[in-house]
Amino acid sequence: MGKEINAGLIGFGTIGRGVARLMLERSGEFMQKKGFALKLKRIADLDVAAPRGLDLPKEMLTTDAQAVLNDPEIEVVIELIGGLEPARTFVLRALEQGKSVVTANKALLAQFGDELFRAAREHGGELAFEASVCGGIPILRVLRQGLFTDRIVSLYGILNGTTNYILTKMAEEGGRFEEVLRQAQDAGFAEADPTMDVSGKDAAQKLAILLRIGFGASVTPEAMFVEGIERIGRQDIEDAEELGYAIKLLAISKRTERGIEARVHPAMIPKGALLASIRDEFNAVELVGDWVGPQVFYGRGAGERPTANAVVSDLVELAERRLEGGGSRAGELLSEAGKTTLVPMEEVVLPYYVRMLALDQPGVLGQIAELLSEEGISIASVIQKGRAQFQGAVPVVIMTHEATEAGMRRAIQRIDALSVVRDRTQVIRVEEL
Amino acid sequence: MGKEINAGLIGFGTIGRGVARLMLERSGEFMQKKGFALKLKRIADLDVAAPRGLDLPKEMLTTDAQAVLNDPEIEVVIELIGGLEPARTFVLRALEQGKSVVTANKALLAQFGDELFRAAREHGGELAFEASVCGGIPILRVLRQGLFTDRIVSLYGILNGTTNYILTKMAEEGGRFEEVLRQAQDAGFAEADPTMDVSGKDAAQKLAILLRIGFGASVTPEAMFVEGIERIGRQDIEDAEELGYAIKLLAISKRTERGIEARVHPAMIPKGALLASIRDEFNAVELVGDWVGPQVFYGRGAGERPTANAVVSDLVELAERRLEGGGSRAGELLSEAGKTTLVPMEEVVLPYYVRMLALDQPGVLGQIAELLSEEGISIASVIQKGRAQFQGAVPVVIMTHEATEAGMRRAIQRIDALSVVRDRTQVIRVEEL
Repeated sequence: MGKEINAGLIGFGTIGRGVARLMLERSGEFMQKKGFALKLKRIADLDVAAPRGLDLPKEMLTTDAQAVLNDPEIEVVIELIGGLEPARTFVLRALEQGKSVVTANKALLAQFGDELFRAAREHGGELAFEASVCGGIPILRVLRQGLFTDRIVSLYGILNGTTNYILTKMAEEGGRFEEVLRQAQDAGFAEADPTMDVSGKDAAQKLAILLRIGFGASVTPEAMFVEGIERIGRQDIEDAEELGYAIKLLAISKRTERGIEARVHPAMIPKGALLASIRDEFNAVELVGDWVGPQVFYGRGAGERPTANAVVSDLVELAERRLEGGGSRAGELLSEAGKTTLVPMEEVVLPYYVRMLALDQPGVLGQIAELLSEEGISIASVIQKGRAQFQGAVPVVIMTHEATEAGMRRAIQRIDALSVVRDRTQVIRVEEL
Repeated sequence: MGKEINAGLIGFGTIGRGVARLMLERSGEFMQKKGFALKLKRIADLDVAAPRGLDLPKEMLTTDAQAVLNDPEIEVVIELIGGLEPARTFVLRALEQGKSVVTANKALLAQFGDELFRAAREHGGELAFEASVCGGIPILRVLRQGLFTDRIVSLYGILNGTTNYILTKMAEEGGRFEEVLRQAQDAGFAEADPTMDVSGKDAAQKLAILLRIGFGASVTPEAMFVEGIERIGRQDIEDAEELGYAIKLLAISKRTERGIEARVHPAMIPKGALLASIRDEFNAVELVGDWVGPQVFYGRGAGERPTANAVVSDLVELAERRLEGGGSRAGELLSEAGKTTLVPMEEVVLPYYVRMLALDQPGVLGQIAELLSEEGISIASVIQKGRAQFQGAVPVVIMTHEATEAGMRRAIQRIDALSVVRDRTQVIRVEEL
């Protein structure tokens, strides 16, 4: 009792406000249990004038991040400004002084994880980042502690709320991608510039972090195959429904005989799978552990309150460790082998949904089947939908058995070159989970 | 580096074998990351002769638990014998010597939690018990660490695999309770004596543990309302399906204006709820945190491998804390107010499914409605199913609006006393989640 630890916050936006609010509202209560006082001493933000609805002493606020970084009384720095710079410089500066750091910055960790964890280990501090993946779901703690003794075999995540919201609305209420995106923006579930989300890049950053914790792999998002949901159309959604699947943007990692796979793309998954029932802006991670078997973790992946809780729970843990004199555990997060080489996307083996627009005339299906067969792709089922809809062409849907991505790409290129095929062929990967 | 910690195991049954196997198989790998050696030094069991398919030095095994408890080199004791005695004595003995203890013993923790955590705090040891609730799902870690800073508002758990397996089979494949129970026994999902499971008592023990961690409440199972699934019939399952519900055995805790509710009983939940999709022997916990909002955790709740992983993850954590010199955190798990008084079941307010067998004659429904109204219960919908089936009586199903349990009990007593009612009335509580 009587012990005290000071934290400083850099970045007083939505999450920063939530962190300050949670600490004001509840820290008395939870600190009583822990037997020490955790104080938010200083908050830095370029804009300290904006009203945040919080009753804070004026001297607590500063526009100078250095006032937080250089305060010797501040032992834990919370970085919530996001982006690569100056966040990276600030976090390194804090770590180099032996401070611990809590961050929600997925881009930073995905890109510079090795550098940051090395700095933390070297200077005896910790770097905590629960808030960087799946907001309020304590998935990193689960992987790092509860499943530390297990070996994760595969992981499938719905890690991006915006795209899940869009896909849910498209499936449940109809509407085209562009329309639903606009609704999502109006409802506050998509940003004005939704590129990071819809392109899959946001999910890839989070997957890079999960790979580090769950697979001991050091991978940047650029090393992964990443495909967004921009090309998912009404026909795909309706076909999926008809075939007993749902379309989700999945971040996937698997241990295979050839190494670790990591990729982000829309996938058809069986409607009965738990991940297919994850609706709206919610996040979920399904994983299979060698010992624990399948597990699913579900909750809100973003928002002021869930994310603030993740930040403050990290803060309490780091404060407690410092007071107990525990050493840095950052070394556990460094891959000894350096950067991990992923299985090339071309070698990934999956079943596929393939939709073509082909002329409705004898021999066309045979021609396509022959061509698929030449690329080593066998057909599981074919649906030809109705009669000629567009200049004598009809949609033909083929579900394939497992095939390599390379074979599929060659096949599609050849199919699209056929004179009887009238539009770019759509391909969606299938994950049976 | 170079540091070592010794563990001793008491109870070499299925889970104990899993623990030994996991440590033999993987401890080298995970200990390398942590930088210390964790050694299983001694294993005690009354039967050391039974083959367990493990290659262990003979001197490791003993029939004398005291050989583990009194070995000064053993710093962490794993208790896997289950039941109240001699487990309680063993755990206390270990704690009193300043050792830490890992246990999977739900009965012991539910009954004697206060005593055990007090002993741990007093002597500076830890008592870890992830394996006692939901096997491989790290739900206790989640509550204790990731959600420590939040306030849990409500929690709904499918905590018993046997009953969930039975209810799943009844819903998906038909069959009466007794038949499906026998199948479950044959399939290894129900014990020869299934009483603890089907009566809800096993779930109540686990709920007592969740209440301590998630709600800061000290409650024994006897203080809760507990009802099993023995009386769930085919008609209930079919009616639930027709009305858009699934029947699950739920362990429920809620913070209400009048205090904490804790109860275990079958409940109708909307088919669209995530918990309704939890099939077979799987477990799941849905909770709502004031800050994080709704979350769900899903996985295998029992079995050698998931449970062994939970035990060993506790073991690693305790070993690491001891090596770092961290003090006991057991005090966090003691309720300052002593035993918690729950909201009496009679005061719980819920909607109900009520099924009567009543004579198919004019005025009967009016008589029942009048009587419900006198007890303050209003009707949401009525379904009269077909014409007379049994001595001129027909099943009448009433879904009520929210009513107190006390009012409902009085109403049912009065309904069952009516001469036009021909069988004991069935009541199932409804949780809209």
